[in-house]
Amino acid sequence: MTDYRLLNYNDQNGQARPGLSVGDAVADLESAVQAETSGNAPFSTASTLTILEKWDDALPVLEAIADKMAAGSVDAMALSDVNLNAPILYPAAIFNAGSNYKDHQLEMGAEDTETDKSVVKPYMFLKSPAHCVIGPGEEIRIPHTTNSVDWEAELGVVIGRYGRNLTKENARSVVAGYTIFNDLSARDNGAREDWPRFKTDWFAHKSFETSAPLGPWIVPVSSIPDPYACKIDLWVNDDHKQDANAGMMIFNIEEQIEYISARLTLRPGDVIATGTPSGVGRPHGTFLNPGDTVRITIGGIGELSNPVVAGI
Amino acid sequence: MTDYRLLNYNDQNGQARPGLSVGDAVADLESAVQAETSGNAPFSTASTLTILEKWDDALPVLEAIADKMAAGSVDAMALSDVNLNAPILYPAAIFNAGSNYKDHQLEMGAEDTETDKSVVKPYMFLKSPAHCVIGPGEEIRIPHTTNSVDWEAELGVVIGRYGRNLTKENARSVVAGYTIFNDLSARDNGAREDWPRFKTDWFAHKSFETSAPLGPWIVPVSSIPDPYACKIDLWVNDDHKQDANAGMMIFNIEEQIEYISARLTLRPGDVIATGTPSGVGRPHGTFLNPGDTVRITIGGIGELSNPVVAGI
Repeated sequence: MTDYRLLNYNDQNGQARPGLSVGDAVADLESAVQAETSGNAPFSTASTLTILEKWDDALPVLEAIADKMAAGSVDAMALSDVNLNAPILYPAAIFNAGSNYKDHQLEMGAEDTETDKSVVKPYMFLKSPAHCVIGPGEEIRIPHTTNSVDWEAELGVVIGRYGRNLTKENARSVVAGYTIFNDLSARDNGAREDWPRFKTDWFAHKSFETSAPLGPWIVPVSSIPDPYACKIDLWVNDDHKQDANAGMMIFNIEEQIEYISARLTLRPGDVIATGTPSGVGRPHGTFLNPGDTVRITIGGIGELSNPVVAGI
Repeated sequence: MTDYRLLNYNDQNGQARPGLSVGDAVADLESAVQAETSGNAPFSTASTLTILEKWDDALPVLEAIADKMAAGSVDAMALSDVNLNAPILYPAAIFNAGSNYKDHQLEMGAEDTETDKSVVKPYMFLKSPAHCVIGPGEEIRIPHTTNSVDWEAELGVVIGRYGRNLTKENARSVVAGYTIFNDLSARDNGAREDWPRFKTDWFAHKSFETSAPLGPWIVPVSSIPDPYACKIDLWVNDDHKQDANAGMMIFNIEEQIEYISARLTLRPGDVIATGTPSGVGRPHGTFLNPGDTVRITIGGIGELSNPVVAGI
């Protein structure tokens, strides 16, 4: 089977359109699917969300298109000519695993008990997708409310089927693919001394505009049989800050899906951001500044890079 | 000007369609807008979201339709024959004010400092809209993860214009109208003893399926010149549990909008749930059980009632 990725690219009017990429070629999915299905597609190509909504119907069509692209028989653009957008505009939810790598817990000053999986259960928080998601190459705009925007490279899990009360055994059945997520964090907005009863503020800490770089595309599960083998690296400019492996996460993907779906129905297009390894800026008091570039690579997926500018 | 409400109703196929109600009559908005604008509407009636997206264009058209409905010259259904859905499917975000009424803070065991507005700033958390919103009459389904689902009647503020870095002085300019929100809470999921560094869990506490009853409709600001005069009441079955006034909120609507929009751009369709007054179940260990009905009325808006059943 041919490896491919599902993506959004911006047309000449800046409008996002779903695309499929194989190697260095990108095909527009509306026209490719229309050609492949003789105009009788069992799913809508209006957006990557409508494709994920009918993922089981879409998969054989996408795979057939990818095979033909590999054979050079599909009209395609060069990847370098294409302006990518975030691959999902927008997820209904981004579920974020808090403090899910032991070495990151320790660098953030965790109590001992937190590093013991027999004591702790998963901890999830929400990030507002439509207000925060940006795509590859888009600017991270530091708002006036923070002086300490920190980076967090994460493996993103993209949901492609509805699922409730999933178990560790069947959890992976709802996963369509993987992407890269940067869980940007306003560190000076996280601790709320004025609210000792609540202590932590997840909204102001995590949901500022442009705080959720996502992309560059979705790699289907067929191309990543073992997500725990994925290498995760992050650079700020030329400084290699994070260097880890997805297999080091404490609560794995199955356990996170079990925890979330016990409470609500996971939906196609949802993203689970599985937590960040060590190497963030806070322990060193080092944060992002205008002029910086944050670059994340995850093995088997690709690269998500975003410049940093002063925001409003 | 004729008072009216913007709503969603379910057609015979269970599909939500925007509608406008005046008194006991409901007009389908697609056909009413088409007739009023001779098919040249400057906004889409595909959903209440597309109407809110072009709120300034929509307002004079909705007002003209309302005037004609009052004169009996628009085809309309009887409100009692119509099956209402939640008025926004779905907000891009629901921003929730935490602990925003002094008497509610005290009943929840707040420290003294929290009740002093010169010490505390607003505290907001997110609730996942697409996973949690239900409409009037829809079932609240208690998931297996909680035995203590509590009620919280709240005034909901519906955004109708984009806004960033708004001030208390211009904040109200982005508000399209008001609705009722029930911020259902799984009290036994709120405190995380296994995560002392975080302490409070807003996701598991607040974002379980059906935890966000919303409706029954949106009342435009023109019909509610003073939202702080709105009476808020909640009953569980025949027990009058909450009895307050929106004017008792600590951080008012303007201050909440200023706080949120300092961090991100408010969008049409966003909902701000402005906090609940005292009278929730937790202080008495009283929670919702299958067979109960929760009914909220807010003066000038109407009634939001939902039955409670056992979920999965």
